[in-house]
Amino acid sequence: MQSFKIGVIGNGSWATALTKIITDGGRPVNWWIRNTASIDYIKRRRHNPNYLHSASFDVSLLNMHHDVQTIVDASDLLVMAVPSAYIEEVLQNLRKDSLKEKKILSAIKGLIPGKDVLLNEYLDKNFGVPLLNYFAVLGPCHAEEVAAEKLSYLTFSGIDTDTAEDIAACFKAPYINTIVNPDILGVQYAAVMKNIYALGAGIAHGLDYGDNFLSVYIANAADEMAGFLRKVGVKHIVVGEHEKDAKKKDMNYAASVYLGDLLVTCYSLYSRNRTFGNMIGKGYTVKAAQLEMNMVAEGYYASRCIYNFNKNIGGDIPIAETIYKILWERQLPAEGFEEVEEVLV
Amino acid sequence: MQSFKIGVIGNGSWATALTKIITDGGRPVNWWIRNTASIDYIKRRRHNPNYLHSASFDVSLLNMHHDVQTIVDASDLLVMAVPSAYIEEVLQNLRKDSLKEKKILSAIKGLIPGKDVLLNEYLDKNFGVPLLNYFAVLGPCHAEEVAAEKLSYLTFSGIDTDTAEDIAACFKAPYINTIVNPDILGVQYAAVMKNIYALGAGIAHGLDYGDNFLSVYIANAADEMAGFLRKVGVKHIVVGEHEKDAKKKDMNYAASVYLGDLLVTCYSLYSRNRTFGNMIGKGYTVKAAQLEMNMVAEGYYASRCIYNFNKNIGGDIPIAETIYKILWERQLPAEGFEEVEEVLV
Repeated sequence: MQSFKIGVIGNGSWATALTKIITDGGRPVNWWIRNTASIDYIKRRRHNPNYLHSASFDVSLLNMHHDVQTIVDASDLLVMAVPSAYIEEVLQNLRKDSLKEKKILSAIKGLIPGKDVLLNEYLDKNFGVPLLNYFAVLGPCHAEEVAAEKLSYLTFSGIDTDTAEDIAACFKAPYINTIVNPDILGVQYAAVMKNIYALGAGIAHGLDYGDNFLSVYIANAADEMAGFLRKVGVKHIVVGEHEKDAKKKDMNYAASVYLGDLLVTCYSLYSRNRTFGNMIGKGYTVKAAQLEMNMVAEGYYASRCIYNFNKNIGGDIPIAETIYKILWERQLPAEGFEEVEEVLV
Repeated sequence: MQSFKIGVIGNGSWATALTKIITDGGRPVNWWIRNTASIDYIKRRRHNPNYLHSASFDVSLLNMHHDVQTIVDASDLLVMAVPSAYIEEVLQNLRKDSLKEKKILSAIKGLIPGKDVLLNEYLDKNFGVPLLNYFAVLGPCHAEEVAAEKLSYLTFSGIDTDTAEDIAACFKAPYINTIVNPDILGVQYAAVMKNIYALGAGIAHGLDYGDNFLSVYIANAADEMAGFLRKVGVKHIVVGEHEKDAKKKDMNYAASVYLGDLLVTCYSLYSRNRTFGNMIGKGYTVKAAQLEMNMVAEGYYASRCIYNFNKNIGGDIPIAETIYKILWERQLPAEGFEEVEEVLV
């Protein structure tokens, strides 16, 4: 079994939760935190001043530094846990050869804004990271429940499933169960799709549909997503000797990383995607909803990206396409959902 | 297209909702209501005094009678909508040839208590109703949302899908979309299974698991249920010329009648199964929980029935089996769920 010098890039709530999990297992972490005041605070008080206060750390296991290059150079497994909106800015000053030979574990949910690509494509293009060295960790896993040490399941995905197993072993903790799967692109696209469907659940709620409809909508979204992911899998898993392995496994799209994550996102009343969708359903324009929330829901950009991406793979995704049309082509929400009604079974 | 003289047996909230749907489409209903005072009240006030007050009726379409034989004799499509606990008592005084040549539409959720069989088996044995004349209507559909005329989807299932289409046409209304499927045993077993899983969701909540776990649990329950139903389908659809039709269709277990109904039941905080399970998880005995709630949750009996039934079909249902063991074999809930944890993916 490989052992790793683990570096965590980012100190938001998800990065903080992941660092807690790793150090709770007694493993040291090189932790990049931009703000030196935060570093000092954590050393003194043993918790992050800004996120997930209730998670306390064994600081003897933490090697914190404000310089990202220092942390990258000290580590051979890099957990990328910066919000996707900031990842480019964080990585842009790294030496171009910094990530050669490193294993990357993406904890980033969604696409790189403006580029509409997954992190693996961005890292491949800018740092020459091959897909074989790239892994992703996904939930369903709210950081708050990690802080409370409620049992959660993390899925570690990568084409090289042996290494994925070794990486998963770094996250063993009494309140974490780990799962490994080879569907590295599928799990990432599932995390993008779920935000679109959660936004749509919000639109339905804003249009005054009830719980009966919502359950039918989510069940059908799960099926639509599974069909789309099957197409993604067929098109993209083409990496030499690992190809056959990944292809021969028929993914179980009811597993936690697919259906479970969709459920937790669609049913969460606090999801930004759902809140944003609710405003759209109630008649706000996209612009007005953005101003009101002072932020953009991930599902908004995701809907356009998936719409364009799907032109290449030809998936049958009428629900996601309707949400795109409502958000980007000014289709009336009520009209769009009348079309959705017709495809539900 | 066949037209039917429709009779509705029962006047609880689900029977009242179904009668509203039928009459909202301008179709007359022969309605069996045991209590003559209720019949008089509905004639005067146009709504049911005891259930679903907000649903009002065009009483010119209602032929109400307190004698069940009278209603049965006047109808050729009988909607059975008595709670399963009372159906035997209601039917026992009917002439044994009463249901010959009739089409039966079961709106009964769950098994006949004490007999642990589906209604079709009971009617076959006691009234000689062949499976070809038997149909079931299922949601996800809370009666309250029918009263509020929120869009809901009803699935009409029967081996004879042509007749199922004609029956579905009797329920067309602006707020109802209808679906037809041939999986008559599968949809009924799904409605039984979902109560077991909802009870289990309650146990998990009582044991203090969080939302991350719940979504993983429900996703895996959906998968377990689909595997079980696949076995049910293979074993049981063996009715002459219709056999081939039913078998060749690969059921979509993400459809509303399967996954949708599971979701609405597991996520409803007001479900009796969930409330009952929560008490079990918190350490109440089954007896104490029953006394406290003054009723029995359907999932309790369902868990035993499915456990025994599954001995014949050999499904892989570790979650449902654990819930059975907790409820019937005094396994400690915490111990049982430690086993469940191990099988989740």
